[in-house]
Amino acid sequence: MSRIVIKNARILTMATEAPQILEGDIGIEGSCIREIGRIDAKMVGDDAVTVIDAAGKVVMPGLINCHNHAAMALFRGYSDDLRLMEWLSQKIWPAEERLDGDAVYAGTMLAAAEMIKSGTTTFADMYFFMDDVARAVRDAGMRATLCQGLLFIDNQAERRLEATRRLFADWHGKAEGRIKAMVGPHAPYTCPPDKLQAVMALAKELQAAIHIHLSETVEEVDQMFDRYGKSPVRYLADLGLFAEHHVLLAHAVNLSRDDIHLLKGLRGGVSHNPVSNLKLGCGVAPVLELRDKGVAVALGTDGAGSATTLDLFEEIKAAAWLQKNRTGDPTAVTAYQALRMATIEGARALGLADRIGSIEPGKQADLILIDMNKPHLFPQNDICALLAYAANGADVDTVLIDGKVVMQNRQLLTMHEADVLAEAAAAARRVIRD
Amino acid sequence: MSRIVIKNARILTMATEAPQILEGDIGIEGSCIREIGRIDAKMVGDDAVTVIDAAGKVVMPGLINCHNHAAMALFRGYSDDLRLMEWLSQKIWPAEERLDGDAVYAGTMLAAAEMIKSGTTTFADMYFFMDDVARAVRDAGMRATLCQGLLFIDNQAERRLEATRRLFADWHGKAEGRIKAMVGPHAPYTCPPDKLQAVMALAKELQAAIHIHLSETVEEVDQMFDRYGKSPVRYLADLGLFAEHHVLLAHAVNLSRDDIHLLKGLRGGVSHNPVSNLKLGCGVAPVLELRDKGVAVALGTDGAGSATTLDLFEEIKAAAWLQKNRTGDPTAVTAYQALRMATIEGARALGLADRIGSIEPGKQADLILIDMNKPHLFPQNDICALLAYAANGADVDTVLIDGKVVMQNRQLLTMHEADVLAEAAAAARRVIRD
Ligand SMILES: [Zn+2]
Ligand SMILES: [Zn+2]
Repeated sequence: MSRIVIKNARILTMATEAPQILEGDIGIEGSCIREIGRIDAKMVGDDAVTVIDAAGKVVMPGLINCHNHAAMALFRGYSDDLRLMEWLSQKIWPAEERLDGDAVYAGTMLAAAEMIKSGTTTFADMYFFMDDVARAVRDAGMRATLCQGLLFIDNQAERRLEATRRLFADWHGKAEGRIKAMVGPHAPYTCPPDKLQAVMALAKELQAAIHIHLSETVEEVDQMFDRYGKSPVRYLADLGLFAEHHVLLAHAVNLSRDDIHLLKGLRGGVSHNPVSNLKLGCGVAPVLELRDKGVAVALGTDGAGSATTLDLFEEIKAAAWLQKNRTGDPTAVTAYQALRMATIEGARALGLADRIGSIEPGKQADLILIDMNKPHLFPQNDICALLAYAANGADVDTVLIDGKVVMQNRQLLTMHEADVLAEAAAAARRVIRD
Repeated sequence: MSRIVIKNARILTMATEAPQILEGDIGIEGSCIREIGRIDAKMVGDDAVTVIDAAGKVVMPGLINCHNHAAMALFRGYSDDLRLMEWLSQKIWPAEERLDGDAVYAGTMLAAAEMIKSGTTTFADMYFFMDDVARAVRDAGMRATLCQGLLFIDNQAERRLEATRRLFADWHGKAEGRIKAMVGPHAPYTCPPDKLQAVMALAKELQAAIHIHLSETVEEVDQMFDRYGKSPVRYLADLGLFAEHHVLLAHAVNLSRDDIHLLKGLRGGVSHNPVSNLKLGCGVAPVLELRDKGVAVALGTDGAGSATTLDLFEEIKAAAWLQKNRTGDPTAVTAYQALRMATIEGARALGLADRIGSIEPGKQADLILIDMNKPHLFPQNDICALLAYAANGADVDTVLIDGKVVMQNRQLLTMHEADVLAEAAAAARRVIRD
């Protein structure tokens, strides 16, 4: 069993309600954190132990991106500054038509490179060609929850449900347990009641969590009222989704007070994706109100096709800024609360809070080391404020996932970065034709 | 005269209304851009010419930060997540009481290190101990417009006006012409009419531009109505400020339709500081409406005490995101427009558009080289979208100011970075006592 000791660390554990910063060492055995404190000098002297010196660095849990379409990294910058329907119909859909498994693998590897280099260790993905996404997750050494996007807008329903079964059979619990499968009905407006019931039955059969888009735009909310006389949240509630399933809701921007009440005590959580929401002009989600109802509010980027960046530090900043501005109250969403959204709240939303999201003995060793020796991180009056409001992905120096070092001194160890960039560029040229 | 050739560049000139990307070389003589195109191989072979290879990089004009209190970098992270009055009265004001020239020098050097490392080459500053700020600007090799903050809230008016005269005598046009002095009445609510008239007379005498805070909060607007029966903008307009002066207005968040009309055709410009405005819960400035009235809208950070970061790439993102979200229109403030706000519009706002803000022969060589060889900047479907929505300060590889290389391969050449950090930390410990 591999053993790693991280020495001389300032450790932001994220394990408590108020910020807790420990000074000491972290001992890792295999994929797990074994102990935190002063690690025996004898063990450190052991040849079989890898020692990482974290002097001048802060160690915190790896960040968790709760909503992504990773392969859309191929479409980064391809279609910015466009209205949503133009973006979809003239740009994204035609390009997605030309996608194949190889392109999805290349795009997901590109996204994985970016995510690791900006401190993300786990992500939730919804897309197509999920076998290729899973291969990329395995090869990159990341942790992920994956689902096939299920849109019921043609007669391919059976084929799509079958793809979900295959994803479970092939990948659930695989890659040393780093991959978990979910069931992924795309959104209320693309999933009629009978189809959604079939999806929920499948989720029960597979004992799986459900990942779904919800109330991203005003238009889709209006559409649901026109079609069913109720809001998307009420539509899902009436079908029994919240009562019986662990649910990961992406966006949840345009919610009424009634909707928020219906989500009270939600098993699962909401992925708040502020950058994508701003960039597409969708609005600002009622994060504070959801939190007041006991809902875990986590952070996600959505695909790089809309958000452009997969750097979760941008989402941390935006999440805090926007709630402060929305309420006129600079104390709303503190730095530490925003960091929680990117770590332990994300773990809750994914149903992984017992395994990741904080630095505690027994949890998986998903850790990032942040180099604080930078002008924008000085003076160090308040570590949490610096991490939430000043740090960015490039400050992440070293990343461990599942007890393995996947980046050291900003060098990716699980992939050849230049090749990944070249292959993604080639794949983008194949699928983007204008 | 020193000669530099930047070879193999993709050059985003910012010189035109629509994006213009040239491929070629940039020839620099002394402090100026001499030519753009294919530079003679013979000249490049010349020993007296420094050659910088920009393969894989984009060259763009250095970014311009139009509103800063640079020395407040000492207060970074010291007082986040607090209400404005608490922040000022319990934290910032007591600490500012303990400031001295040495601390201001140390704080400004820290800010300069951060600004250069994130691609800012020019900044507008308003603070105290301006002689020490100017020394730091000179030593760091930056370009700046500096003003003494003039608050008329005690009987120190004469002393403060005198400090402005001294700043002009000692520093205006100095440091190889990199420093320009301005006159800096703090804000309408801290400058009664007779004092503001004295300030304007001084500005005329010195032929100087005026830098002033404006309508940052609803509270100060209400206060002006209570005191004078008019908005801050109307107050300044009635005193003749806009008719007779080049004016740099910081914030301009809480403006009425009347206010916006009064600013039509403003000589000077507005520094939009979206991160600070969000973080303090002040609101979102009417950027589109101001631009419609022909006002140059530039970007600033405000001090790191409130904004935490001085990375203008954050402001570029936030400026575009917020107008898109405010209008529900993803086409509002395009990537290129946001980049213009950080470059040529900033130059206009500072009255320096003939010298900086775009890459054109005859302009000062204030240039940044951005390393595009990164996962988050791939594939390269649209350079402007990547720079505006995905890049951050850490992607800046090399910085030239006034024809001198001040950072190369992320190594600062005008200062010893570790010393600057240590001295800033020591100064912060002296002035922050809790
Ligand atoms: Zn999505
Ligand atoms: Zn200010």
